[in-house]
Amino acid sequence: MSEVNRVWRLRRRPVGYITDDVLSLEEEGIPEPGDGECVFRLNYLSLDPTNRIWMSDMDQYMPPVELDAPMRGVVCGTVVKSNNSAFNEGDVVSGIGTWADYQTGSPETVNPLGDTGPIPVIDAFGAFAVVGPTAYFGLLDVGRPKGGETVVVSAAAGAVGSIVGQIAKIRDCRVVGLAGSEEKCNWIRNDLGFDEAINYKTANIPEALAKACPNGIDVYFDNVGGEILDACLKLMNLNGRIPTCGLISQYNASEEVAGPSNYPMILMQRLRVEGFVVLDYAERYPEAIAALSEWMAAGKIKIRQDVVDGLENALEATKKLFTGANTGKLMIRVKDV
Amino acid sequence: MSEVNRVWRLRRRPVGYITDDVLSLEEEGIPEPGDGECVFRLNYLSLDPTNRIWMSDMDQYMPPVELDAPMRGVVCGTVVKSNNSAFNEGDVVSGIGTWADYQTGSPETVNPLGDTGPIPVIDAFGAFAVVGPTAYFGLLDVGRPKGGETVVVSAAAGAVGSIVGQIAKIRDCRVVGLAGSEEKCNWIRNDLGFDEAINYKTANIPEALAKACPNGIDVYFDNVGGEILDACLKLMNLNGRIPTCGLISQYNASEEVAGPSNYPMILMQRLRVEGFVVLDYAERYPEAIAALSEWMAAGKIKIRQDVVDGLENALEATKKLFTGANTGKLMIRVKDV
Repeated sequence: MSEVNRVWRLRRRPVGYITDDVLSLEEEGIPEPGDGECVFRLNYLSLDPTNRIWMSDMDQYMPPVELDAPMRGVVCGTVVKSNNSAFNEGDVVSGIGTWADYQTGSPETVNPLGDTGPIPVIDAFGAFAVVGPTAYFGLLDVGRPKGGETVVVSAAAGAVGSIVGQIAKIRDCRVVGLAGSEEKCNWIRNDLGFDEAINYKTANIPEALAKACPNGIDVYFDNVGGEILDACLKLMNLNGRIPTCGLISQYNASEEVAGPSNYPMILMQRLRVEGFVVLDYAERYPEAIAALSEWMAAGKIKIRQDVVDGLENALEATKKLFTGANTGKLMIRVKDV
Repeated sequence: MSEVNRVWRLRRRPVGYITDDVLSLEEEGIPEPGDGECVFRLNYLSLDPTNRIWMSDMDQYMPPVELDAPMRGVVCGTVVKSNNSAFNEGDVVSGIGTWADYQTGSPETVNPLGDTGPIPVIDAFGAFAVVGPTAYFGLLDVGRPKGGETVVVSAAAGAVGSIVGQIAKIRDCRVVGLAGSEEKCNWIRNDLGFDEAINYKTANIPEALAKACPNGIDVYFDNVGGEILDACLKLMNLNGRIPTCGLISQYNASEEVAGPSNYPMILMQRLRVEGFVVLDYAERYPEAIAALSEWMAAGKIKIRQDVVDGLENALEATKKLFTGANTGKLMIRVKDV
């Protein structure tokens, strides 16, 4: 057990893109578990767009991280000490923790990952901790696609978007994805089976969407907001649904961002626009994980992970989420399980 | 039976506020009923904000009125000739027709009004043809308020808004209305029992709303869009609902209107924003009318009608909807039943 505990602390709230002075990496002592707690050593740290929300003090779905506190993250680790019979030394746990080598956990924050069967722990963590259930509940519970409908997803080569599109294909929908490079478009079209892929960085988005969706859009799974949301609104069919999972196009905005100018389509087409946060579905995770495991084992859902080694690289790696530099699930590997 | 049939025809699509050159009043012949049709004489013409939508060629929920065609409207009339056993001479019918003294109807466009009991036909038409069912289904089916929740309604002294607020009171909610004059605010607070009324023309809207909604907003019944929508979004509680009934603040816009800048609250608070059009509930009208009749008879719902005499005044009267000059249900009376 290393003597040093590296901890990333939030030093200032980002304005615009994340800069190096937002977090600092400190060397601190290793914590002891309090009553009912365990201490675990970090194996993997999930990096997600929502980290940018937690760094800010915008209106948000959890309290923001306090200044000078350890940065919050979704983590996977191995228990090294425990004051709770729910955790045994050597257990692999996952949940909400911090960007730190060693940290305390409790049943309120982490759960044992359990048996992942033939799926390696890194893949199970990458697919099941956040993004798989997000895609599963957001698409199926909020979006409710029917066979034959057209589903559009933005950030389609991203960790959530790529799974959304594959689930929509399993449900016999026509699936159109928007991604930020030819390589990403080729991946979702050729490897993941999307019907159409649009490179939003080079295409005329409204024209390309209209062409790719000759029967309009029934479900737009929104990860980005902004211009793509506006273009989708224009094409929505009667009683269409817009599960709102993320609005990454505006997390870095330093000024007020106007909403979509096609907002009146919500009225005209009787749309349902509904925000959701996967944490609200915590009790139903086993359902999502069972379905995702089966689909992954059958080769119907493929995942791509972007694994960066070293906790010291967490800040630099996070920036990739906002420049489109990563494909698939981005995470930090400190030490394989 | 008069020999002359006055018909308002759409001559140009409005840009900004409705102007006198948008419609022209012609003297034409009285139509004969075709197969399966009746001809009825107009008694009352409902004037509604949605008329402005139909005049335009914006994306909308029905085809726009064609240029040079008779203007579309919700009408109440008396059958004078019939080629359909569903309609007898002297029957009072209501449904979707045109701004004309005499016009044809069919079972696809109009239905017999039926026995209105102790309620005068003019009141039954005013309350039941459009606005009552709109308030009923929009609030109860889309908004789904629970007792103790806070319901905010805009255009609260309007025909729909005033009924929405009263139904919300019947459901034991805290009700806050926004209206455009002190007289309107006094009416909804003192006569209709709203808990709070805000004069949006003189108040600082975000501050006044925050003060009137100390527990946040659970349901915002949106008739107007724009600045009031944005202020409400900011105050929405977790899992709040925004039934979207109208966006009158932007129907007269001649340029693209930005959406609400607080749109991200849909994600952060997991809101449901849902558009609806009362026509979609046509099959369930009897349910709404039964409930509304009972509440009206018990004095729990009061309505106020703004009746303008003379079909020739329809264009001028319609303008009042967009300047806040009317209170309650606006309609043209050609001849009482």
